[in-house]
Amino acid sequence: MAKKKSVNDSKVIMTEMVLPNDTNTLDNLMGGRLMHWMDICAAIAAQKHSNRTVVTASVDNISFRKAIPLGSVVTLESHVTRTFNSSMEIYIKATAEKIPFGKKLEISNQAFFTFVAVDQGGHPIEIPDVIPETDVEKELNAGALRRRQLRLVLAKRMKVADAKELKDYLDNA
Amino acid sequence: MAKKKSVNDSKVIMTEMVLPNDTNTLDNLMGGRLMHWMDICAAIAAQKHSNRTVVTASVDNISFRKAIPLGSVVTLESHVTRTFNSSMEIYIKATAEKIPFGKKLEISNQAFFTFVAVDQGGHPIEIPDVIPETDVEKELNAGALRRRQLRLVLAKRMKVADAKELKDYLDNA
Amino acid sequence: MAKKKSVNDSKVIMTEMVLPNDTNTLDNLMGGRLMHWMDICAAIAAQKHSNRTVVTASVDNISFRKAIPLGSVVTLESHVTRTFNSSMEIYIKATAEKIPFGKKLEISNQAFFTFVAVDQGGHPIEIPDVIPETDVEKELNAGALRRRQLRLVLAKRMKVADAKELKDYLDNA
Amino acid sequence: MAKKKSVNDSKVIMTEMVLPNDTNTLDNLMGGRLMHWMDICAAIAAQKHSNRTVVTASVDNISFRKAIPLGSVVTLESHVTRTFNSSMEIYIKATAEKIPFGKKLEISNQAFFTFVAVDQGGHPIEIPDVIPETDVEKELNAGALRRRQLRLVLAKRMKVADAKELKDYLDNA
Amino acid sequence: MAKKKSVNDSKVIMTEMVLPNDTNTLDNLMGGRLMHWMDICAAIAAQKHSNRTVVTASVDNISFRKAIPLGSVVTLESHVTRTFNSSMEIYIKATAEKIPFGKKLEISNQAFFTFVAVDQGGHPIEIPDVIPETDVEKELNAGALRRRQLRLVLAKRMKVADAKELKDYLDNA
Amino acid sequence: MAKKKSVNDSKVIMTEMVLPNDTNTLDNLMGGRLMHWMDICAAIAAQKHSNRTVVTASVDNISFRKAIPLGSVVTLESHVTRTFNSSMEIYIKATAEKIPFGKKLEISNQAFFTFVAVDQGGHPIEIPDVIPETDVEKELNAGALRRRQLRLVLAKRMKVADAKELKDYLDNA
Repeated sequence: MAKKKSVNDSKVIMTEMVLPNDTNTLDNLMGGRLMHWMDICAAIAAQKHSNRTVVTASVDNISFRKAIPLGSVVTLESHVTRTFNSSMEIYIKATAEKIPFGKKLEISNQAFFTFVAVDQGGHPIEIPDVIPETDVEKELNAGALRRRQLRLVLAKRMKVADAKELKDYLDNA
Repeated sequence: MAKKKSVNDSKVIMTEMVLPNDTNTLDNLMGGRLMHWMDICAAIAAQKHSNRTVVTASVDNISFRKAIPLGSVVTLESHVTRTFNSSMEIYIKATAEKIPFGKKLEISNQAFFTFVAVDQGGHPIEIPDVIPETDVEKELNAGALRRRQLRLVLAKRMKVADAKELKDYLDNA
Repeated sequence: MAKKKSVNDSKVIMTEMVLPNDTNTLDNLMGGRLMHWMDICAAIAAQKHSNRTVVTASVDNISFRKAIPLGSVVTLESHVTRTFNSSMEIYIKATAEKIPFGKKLEISNQAFFTFVAVDQGGHPIEIPDVIPETDVEKELNAGALRRRQLRLVLAKRMKVADAKELKDYLDNA
Repeated sequence: MAKKKSVNDSKVIMTEMVLPNDTNTLDNLMGGRLMHWMDICAAIAAQKHSNRTVVTASVDNISFRKAIPLGSVVTLESHVTRTFNSSMEIYIKATAEKIPFGKKLEISNQAFFTFVAVDQGGHPIEIPDVIPETDVEKELNAGALRRRQLRLVLAKRMKVADAKELKDYLDNA
Repeated sequence: MAKKKSVNDSKVIMTEMVLPNDTNTLDNLMGGRLMHWMDICAAIAAQKHSNRTVVTASVDNISFRKAIPLGSVVTLESHVTRTFNSSMEIYIKATAEKIPFGKKLEISNQAFFTFVAVDQGGHPIEIPDVIPETDVEKELNAGALRRRQLRLVLAKRMKVADAKELKDYLDNA
Repeated sequence: MAKKKSVNDSKVIMTEMVLPNDTNTLDNLMGGRLMHWMDICAAIAAQKHSNRTVVTASVDNISFRKAIPLGSVVTLESHVTRTFNSSMEIYIKATAEKIPFGKKLEISNQAFFTFVAVDQGGHPIEIPDVIPETDVEKELNAGALRRRQLRLVLAKRMKVADAKELKDYLDNA
């Protein structure tokens, strides 16, 4: 289990069409359906990194910025950003297009999910580290530390005083 | 639109059975399906408060603490905690039971969603205020301010220095 | 198994949104989908009363009185009315609202389902009695006898002459 | 609209496989799913007879006699039995088979649904009469009168004293 | 296993309503959904002939000739045409009607699927022969040989020179 | 409309998890569900090339070579191979993996679908040409001619004698 893997090893692309049952009464994609797709896309990335069954541990704050209309094609991309023993943070980006009108919707949604790799009995199991290579990968890898501290603080399992990276970020935010 | 409404006016209870297609390969409920149910339950609470069509604006950090097995019954309860012009924060609690074995799973999941009320053209529209009455309602109402500041800070639309309630909370967390 | 339970122990509230795939070509909820929801809501009440796996034994005559349009929110409420050894009668009420227009549809649908509690081998198993407390609960409990007689008469397993409560009711109906 | 149609004109055969999401925790078909299929099968028969959009008006008492296991093939057959101005009674028979084991389950379920034909505005509209030809068709046609009286009595829209056919039947049942 | 069966033994009729989620942005049935229904209808015919679990081995070229609008009723009919040791060719015809407007769409789609009968371990197992009786059944039975040769040629498992029936057909086509 | 597009402009990657309702009684993916996914993946590629609404015109012979078990991840890749006025041939490759066991299933399925681009009235409309660049793209582009001739021959709209490329291929096959 000493093996390290690159970010590319966990990359997943998923494409979905927005069908009638995915939409609200304004004929726009419901937020809950998008989160459902994000969770599946992120779970597959976590599986690819760990070669294990994985379970969703948490999802970070997500903002839904623009309505995605019926008939749009939604492309989801995900990959591991950083690992912590048996858990992994996964980055997901979702972009929507209304293709027959050649219209790429400018703003996309992004999210961070955390998954835990488990054995067949459901117990957490150690996973390989991930090696960030590009600048974007390195930035996501560095930020993972601070996002994890925020998760622990919100769960009252860490004090802000002990969360150095989070504190630095918030002081400058 | 000066009318105020009580928290009770928006209370929603939703019950779902965990069916095979809702589960992962360990036969436990997938996180994404639970988020999908939370979004619907929260949207109905937001509709009941505003008597308007509503759209999901954001979801806060959610932790998934325990596996919920196939055949469980999940009860979701939601209501408005606080309003901000045309947006509302909704509190959702999800509890799971494996009823035929008389087993109430001890730990439940909770989440905060934000919804915006819109008119038929999709434009934000003002909504009534909510009046918290019980101690729990008042605590959720007070905390909504700080959670909103965190959302704005994470979205880089507010500085921590300007987020008094959030800062106080984090300093003491 | 001598334990008795109150009606409240089995109360279930379920909420569903009417989505496109639930509707007919007039954009109204299909009767079959509503019956499907009623069956799930009633099954959970029967599970809560018996703490057992339950199977649908029968459904009584249901009238569908008013069309329920796309986008409505349907609230289903169910509870046990009376038990007979291993079987239970469940009362279900379904009310629909078109919330964004503040319109509570006046008329709701009601139904009576009968469930049998079974062990893991699928064999009927004895269940606790139910104690009706309020006037409405007592009336439903009393009527259950007559409704059961009608089920047995329709199934040719009882003669009207032997069905005292049913006969009295029909003579005065 | 003076045209009469034969029973054959409305006959529908529908076949469904019992998939995992259709089953309860004993891996048997849920009663509500079977009712959903019955409603669709009956609605198509009502459409075929009336060449109109139809809405479910009521369903009569249904007994579920035997468990139908996962992987079974369910065959539903439906046709009109009798018409009443704008409404029709539909007979549905559902038979299940576990084909790979060559096992025809002996007992099948039957149900009677009532549908109303409507115009595009949702208003009831007159439909052709049906002419029963075989002995079975004639028996179902005759019984429809008594079943309709029972529906009206249960809905408190008719007195048993005025329901000659129902009274005769019950006196001899 | 020497038993022979008639074509009638495997006949299946399946009826589906075109619901919103089955349609594309022009409100017409998606080709993939129709293929999904064809596969289920054909699999049941193959099960009925072989009394075995069956798996899809191949599907022949299908043309989709006319759009089938939302709300249509699609009737699928299937039966075995010819057997080859453990595999069977199944013929499927799909006809669509827009019943409330009394409009039978003139052109229907047809397809040929091949299924293999397998034992519980998933291994191919011998099946009964089929005896074609009517002229149409005999013609479909004869053509099955040529269609099988085309499948083998396209899979590069046979040379056209060795495919006598296919060659004769193509030379005259 | 004189614009030409590269093959890359239409490339689509779609990822699906095999859930319980997608499987047969051996817990393997049903062929019809895979075809449904292929149709959606191909339709999106056709949309991306044409920037139009598209409808499925035909699917070529598909062989299903290996069982894909429950819990597998299926990756579908599609792109345009060649255009003919308003129609496009799309190539789709589907690969399956059982990731938690690090097992890439060796054999993948491939298919060719044909789509027609239509205007809002459903009438065929001219589309850009595609320029194959790599060797693989050029080979798929060349083969499209012969596959189209086979479609026309099977539909009895062309004689083999007039189908030069098909004839050459079959003579050497």
